[in-house]
Amino acid sequence: MSTTPDTDNAVRAFVDDHYAAFLDDLGAWLRIPSVSADPARAGDVRRSAQWLASHLTATGFPEVEIWETPGAPAVFAAWPSGDPDAPTVLVYGHHDVQPAAREDGWRTDPFDPVVEDGRLYARGAADDKGQVLCHTLGVRAHLAATGRTAPAVNLKLLIEGEEESGSPHFPELVRAHADRLACDTVIVSDTGMWSEDTPTVCTGMRGLTDCQIDLYGPDQDIHSGSFGGAVPNPATEAARLAAALHGDDRTVAVPGFYDGIVELTDRERELFAELPFDEADWLRTAHSHGLLGEDGYTTLERIWARPTAEVNGISGGYQGPGGKTIVPSTAQLKLSFRLVAGQDTERVQRSVREWVAASLPAGIRHEITFWGATRPCLTPLDHPALQSLVRAMGRAFDQKIRFTREGGSGPAADLRDVLGAPVLFLGISVPSDGWHAPNEKVELDLLAKGAETAAHLWADLAENGPV
Amino acid sequence: MSTTPDTDNAVRAFVDDHYAAFLDDLGAWLRIPSVSADPARAGDVRRSAQWLASHLTATGFPEVEIWETPGAPAVFAAWPSGDPDAPTVLVYGHHDVQPAAREDGWRTDPFDPVVEDGRLYARGAADDKGQVLCHTLGVRAHLAATGRTAPAVNLKLLIEGEEESGSPHFPELVRAHADRLACDTVIVSDTGMWSEDTPTVCTGMRGLTDCQIDLYGPDQDIHSGSFGGAVPNPATEAARLAAALHGDDRTVAVPGFYDGIVELTDRERELFAELPFDEADWLRTAHSHGLLGEDGYTTLERIWARPTAEVNGISGGYQGPGGKTIVPSTAQLKLSFRLVAGQDTERVQRSVREWVAASLPAGIRHEITFWGATRPCLTPLDHPALQSLVRAMGRAFDQKIRFTREGGSGPAADLRDVLGAPVLFLGISVPSDGWHAPNEKVELDLLAKGAETAAHLWADLAENGPV
Repeated sequence: MSTTPDTDNAVRAFVDDHYAAFLDDLGAWLRIPSVSADPARAGDVRRSAQWLASHLTATGFPEVEIWETPGAPAVFAAWPSGDPDAPTVLVYGHHDVQPAAREDGWRTDPFDPVVEDGRLYARGAADDKGQVLCHTLGVRAHLAATGRTAPAVNLKLLIEGEEESGSPHFPELVRAHADRLACDTVIVSDTGMWSEDTPTVCTGMRGLTDCQIDLYGPDQDIHSGSFGGAVPNPATEAARLAAALHGDDRTVAVPGFYDGIVELTDRERELFAELPFDEADWLRTAHSHGLLGEDGYTTLERIWARPTAEVNGISGGYQGPGGKTIVPSTAQLKLSFRLVAGQDTERVQRSVREWVAASLPAGIRHEITFWGATRPCLTPLDHPALQSLVRAMGRAFDQKIRFTREGGSGPAADLRDVLGAPVLFLGISVPSDGWHAPNEKVELDLLAKGAETAAHLWADLAENGPV
Repeated sequence: MSTTPDTDNAVRAFVDDHYAAFLDDLGAWLRIPSVSADPARAGDVRRSAQWLASHLTATGFPEVEIWETPGAPAVFAAWPSGDPDAPTVLVYGHHDVQPAAREDGWRTDPFDPVVEDGRLYARGAADDKGQVLCHTLGVRAHLAATGRTAPAVNLKLLIEGEEESGSPHFPELVRAHADRLACDTVIVSDTGMWSEDTPTVCTGMRGLTDCQIDLYGPDQDIHSGSFGGAVPNPATEAARLAAALHGDDRTVAVPGFYDGIVELTDRERELFAELPFDEADWLRTAHSHGLLGEDGYTTLERIWARPTAEVNGISGGYQGPGGKTIVPSTAQLKLSFRLVAGQDTERVQRSVREWVAASLPAGIRHEITFWGATRPCLTPLDHPALQSLVRAMGRAFDQKIRFTREGGSGPAADLRDVLGAPVLFLGISVPSDGWHAPNEKVELDLLAKGAETAAHLWADLAENGPV
């Protein structure tokens, strides 16, 4: 379990030598369109789980299981160290992906991976199949470099299949298998770094809950001249709801939304301010043409440490060419809420339900469906396992490692709460990877450094981590 | 040109004897899906014009012409009286129809007419093909009952092909052909009556202008966790625009919108209040479950005599099953504005343009396209030709005729302004006919009475109307 420069070179050499085969494997997995939000893709999500299980067995994991849920299946694998004093580590990721269709703006088929200029383009390349597969290359590099036949830590993987749908069955799954999942440290590999040049460790993720609100007005579309202006219009009411989500200062205006939140400390705001944030660069990465958000906070504070409300979709009435002078019969809103430490997902859902019910006029019936809930997560900066991760990344990247948070969401808090273990984030994606967007990609260099980091981390945790 | 009971019976007998053939003709016309809003239907709109031209020639009109416009063609026909003192009447209607698709909620194919329980179901049955065709049956009944070989009035018809698209080329068409269209009275047959039991004459129509607003935010859909809350969201901004259309008192909040409007008089409010309005019945006809409109006005005042703003369509972001946590790239609003006397369509369009431009944050680009503009129209209650119409209807319906207005819109004001002639409304549609809605129908009894009314009206106008 040495961490000398020789080991570093051996890890790097192994990763380099096996990288082409690794990319072939990743490509095969990315060809499976495991879109958990689309019921028509349920079979593909299952095929994705089966592919991963086979791959983990081939990697050498002696225990590989597909765990069923009422929704999509998860994959569990374990590789005991053999050393009675070895710490136990659980790696979390997901094998489902966001919806993607060529007509959304993809230059290539989202489910036919293409390598171009050192990047791999495909839905799920960065979020999250690429980052999950780093670990099978990483553990093999760890074994090769240390001459071991089993990892220096008791290594477990839990790769779920419903993360992009809000992980509705994940808490139950973790509770049901808490004994198998027991660990000293959770490693979440579903986050990003600051940039290709500035490697960082993430210390927290936001929570998430999202919903669909269906509004029903007239029983059919009706003539706007004969009836408009005298009856409620569900498209108008959907718009009024969406507009009322935010005040003019762009705070979230749902009553009770901010109750109990943990405010940013001065030290955190200083750490954020130290990062080389360039507004023009950031806007380019965001494909956006202006900044707009909650008054009194910087852009990084807004996306990492403040809760938000977003309209993901709105529809109602005539969508075809030209005009159609109707009062539409129905309208629909899809909303998501990002949450920070101190916000309770169920309390937020209750607040939203009460706000919607109180906002609609007589004559408009509504239904509201929450898709899922993911609690926010924040890791103490001074945890010893975090120091192991920083050292492992430093060796892989040959650079000083800085700190960020992640604006996105994952079910880390469920693992932390049920398993009673601290959560670390090992993520090598960068903002330009285009998560949830057309032309999602992953940087091939960073995938390799992710595998190296994992290889170093198991050795470091075994030497220095909490037992 | 007698108006005795004998003539009344002769008119009725002719209409009854020729009604089956009339329905066959109407059915053939309704089978042509002349949807002017859909560019893919341009050929069908042309076929509809050609069908009507042939039918008018067969009816006996000596002059029948298809008039081209930069959009869809109109049909013009004339039948001179032969009497040098005869007044000239111009009948207006339209041969284009609203979009319709089986999946919108039609029980039968909207373009395959079905007769059931005394009603004819098809797109355009009431709006407006049925009401246009009343005139060819009506003029033949008039000739048969009076023994004439030409009508007692110089009868002209102008049946346009773009009414459902806001009549964008109609004012130009009327100006270009003002000499051919010259008349003493305009008869618009594109409105409705109070109900099957309460025949009414309409004295005004609202104006209309409608538009599409396209909003552009990020160049592609982006991750709501990574970027949401820090950049403007076009779906949110579309919603904020649509919501800001109305104040909390449901007045239209676009600055300048009400400038110069002619307010309702006490006498008009009294006339409206005399009608047998039943809130529950009206809501059933509106397929709606609540009343909502401008504070301080009754339902009839809101739909007939007050200007309104309506969201006809709204869309943006993810519309598929489940959730997708994105900030969408684009969003779209389709809005329509009903206008009353005193409102200038161009001034309203300018107000809307200025309001939209002033309402959007930096980082959201927009385009606004107005589809068309139709001015409001109001006929003096004391005009002698209106008295002729009331008498003609009274004979056809054997009932007292009351007065209404129409909330819908037609290009009557262009005819009035260019031709310098008063506008009357001969409409036999009823609110339950479902204009612009699925399962549009027309009552067969009322179609027959419409034909009778026309037959009586030509005789009465020749005797009593303005020369």
